[in-house]
Amino acid sequence: MQEDLSTTSLFKKRMSYLGNGDQYFYKEPLHITKGEDVWLFDKEGKKYLDVYNNVAHVGHCNPVVVDAMVNQAAKLNTNTRYLHEHIVALAEAIIESMPEGLNVCYFCCSGSEANDLAFQIARNNTGNKGCLVTENAYHGNTTAVFQMSPEDCTANQRESWIGTIPGPQEYLEDEVRCIQKTKDQVTKLKSHNHSIAAFIADNIFSSEGIYLPREGYLQTLYALVKDLGGLTIADEVQSGFGRTGDFMWGFEHSGVVPDIVTLGKPMGNGHPISAVITTREIADGFNRDYGYFNTFGGNPVSCAAGLAVIRYIKDNNLVKHAKTVGNYFQKELVRTIGTNDLVKDIRGSGLFIGIEMKDDTITSSTVEQLMNNGVLVGQTGPNNNVMKLRPPMTFQKEHADFVVQQLEKIQLNF
Amino acid sequence: MQEDLSTTSLFKKRMSYLGNGDQYFYKEPLHITKGEDVWLFDKEGKKYLDVYNNVAHVGHCNPVVVDAMVNQAAKLNTNTRYLHEHIVALAEAIIESMPEGLNVCYFCCSGSEANDLAFQIARNNTGNKGCLVTENAYHGNTTAVFQMSPEDCTANQRESWIGTIPGPQEYLEDEVRCIQKTKDQVTKLKSHNHSIAAFIADNIFSSEGIYLPREGYLQTLYALVKDLGGLTIADEVQSGFGRTGDFMWGFEHSGVVPDIVTLGKPMGNGHPISAVITTREIADGFNRDYGYFNTFGGNPVSCAAGLAVIRYIKDNNLVKHAKTVGNYFQKELVRTIGTNDLVKDIRGSGLFIGIEMKDDTITSSTVEQLMNNGVLVGQTGPNNNVMKLRPPMTFQKEHADFVVQQLEKIQLNF
Repeated sequence: MQEDLSTTSLFKKRMSYLGNGDQYFYKEPLHITKGEDVWLFDKEGKKYLDVYNNVAHVGHCNPVVVDAMVNQAAKLNTNTRYLHEHIVALAEAIIESMPEGLNVCYFCCSGSEANDLAFQIARNNTGNKGCLVTENAYHGNTTAVFQMSPEDCTANQRESWIGTIPGPQEYLEDEVRCIQKTKDQVTKLKSHNHSIAAFIADNIFSSEGIYLPREGYLQTLYALVKDLGGLTIADEVQSGFGRTGDFMWGFEHSGVVPDIVTLGKPMGNGHPISAVITTREIADGFNRDYGYFNTFGGNPVSCAAGLAVIRYIKDNNLVKHAKTVGNYFQKELVRTIGTNDLVKDIRGSGLFIGIEMKDDTITSSTVEQLMNNGVLVGQTGPNNNVMKLRPPMTFQKEHADFVVQQLEKIQLNF
Repeated sequence: MQEDLSTTSLFKKRMSYLGNGDQYFYKEPLHITKGEDVWLFDKEGKKYLDVYNNVAHVGHCNPVVVDAMVNQAAKLNTNTRYLHEHIVALAEAIIESMPEGLNVCYFCCSGSEANDLAFQIARNNTGNKGCLVTENAYHGNTTAVFQMSPEDCTANQRESWIGTIPGPQEYLEDEVRCIQKTKDQVTKLKSHNHSIAAFIADNIFSSEGIYLPREGYLQTLYALVKDLGGLTIADEVQSGFGRTGDFMWGFEHSGVVPDIVTLGKPMGNGHPISAVITTREIADGFNRDYGYFNTFGGNPVSCAAGLAVIRYIKDNNLVKHAKTVGNYFQKELVRTIGTNDLVKDIRGSGLFIGIEMKDDTITSSTVEQLMNNGVLVGQTGPNNNVMKLRPPMTFQKEHADFVVQQLEKIQLNF
């Protein structure tokens, strides 16, 4: 399969053949050929500690997940118009992990599809069209969900049914002002004849700069949205599957129960699978008026991967592990670079940590230098000045130590 | 993985856990546990000739595709922010199969995602919002693409930017009237301030009742849409990858070149992968204003599956095979049941055949009886009276004979 292409000619071909060929990380794109647990290897065999890719949730090429997928792929892969065990077992495992009442699943292929479906369900249930999202939210890339992603969708591309409201950090600073801002957005939507169908939030607020919302934020908003006749959607594509420690799902930290939950990225450890979970009542209404069928969604191979992931998390106590190692990692970061003038804040939850730096240039430079030193991290936030640390859940304390060591080396050059 | 659940308790759990649990084929759902080439096997080991599932394009569990996927899954599965060979090799293979100028690919996970992206691209390129589709078209299930699917989206759910136009059969009957109808829809859209962004069609017109468009239909429409400033989208999710014989892509039968092509279902032989292909100029405009990133889209495992499928088709001359066996199959159907009073028409192209019957009740009954006799076929068309025969591309003449024999047996009971 053209394994002998040089990196240069591969790059040239990529830029020519792909519509979005320029969307690579780093000044010079990495040519990655192998993955193993928390490590990625480039073509020359150089190894990188992966502190960024949450899709490989239980480790790159986790043999338990690969085996489950492989065995099923050789046996049967077809659509859900026939009965099959795996989709039922996966739905059962997901429902068991959810608050009571969230007991119905739909399966799709991507987080975007899941959020798009969740929004269709919310519009159907409420009869309303409007949507509230936080000011720098990202929820995906379909026509509808792009609108719900102000991180990408600029104000002049935005349709009149979207209202953007302050994220958890601004709420902490001045709750009264934020509630007023939110109400103003509702009024603006109403002036366009849009009532609220849904409020959707990723509950680690990743693109807002990585915040686990403090006491009251989601409670206040959920109550407000309910009053307005809208549904609440918890987008767990980023915060789900134990990532944030303590709980399986991000919304649990806030003690709220959403009307709809969406799952994506980590769900199949890289295999394209996603899901929407809601109540029987909401689902029945949607099925009566619309219905939903997804050719690939919920196929036996996708569900084998999904089942293997959810069982691996449970069997290996990875939710607790994320908390233990995440706490250690944050503490070590605070101890070593916490007082550096270039570091403004270190925050997050479990194995989802943000390091807010002085500005985007310093952040980019740090991300690039860390890569040169064999550590892969990301960059996010409205000002692009937050380093995003979001490794596979099999990340250990020794890996945290390695990151800290490399960060300390770079500190010298700041 | 709960393999010991009885079919009854599996069914009960499915209905309880799945939002769309009732979407199974047949009065009593089949409990399928194994697939092999053109055969599916139920829990009791009864075998069924699969004359319906086009997703298992090169045969259920084709070992070449499974091996390619398995090997890659054990090695690396990550997103396209890094360089990798497979996405470039797959893009190259697709581009080679396309008319000149269609030389840029985007990768997604489902046909719905591909059609949604194609429409975003068309809207961006034209600055228009309107869309023309045929009157019973199906293009998928995102918020936007559901609108483009009048088969599912009822007139009262339809937004003002959708115009529905006659399919190829009505065109054949009265072209002048159909062109007028099409122009009327354009006028209706304009009255809502919508100019045409795109005309999208599945080029075997599956949900219209399975028609390979006759001479002139697509040419006339493509010229009209171009005049109106819109783009043409060929949805090859159904007709693609050699399915219709003679050509790799359905639109080639009509000698037209679309602005955008979308691929889906058969592309990964069941693995969730899809693509959008367009020109460099159109892609560059879209990337400048919007851009598109899909976490799972184009990952090395998906691309390994896609590459294996496209190579298998080529290595085994399956396009020619679809033509040969398809022609034989149609001829045998005409010879044996063609004069039956209940059969109104037998049509299609390659291994995509429609048998139009007297009414939907007779069609349902035939589909159900064929299943009992070990043959799986589908049902489609605006009046639900067309039997859909769309087997894996590895379908042989002996399989066609088996279907014909079973149909003849049922004829006795008509």
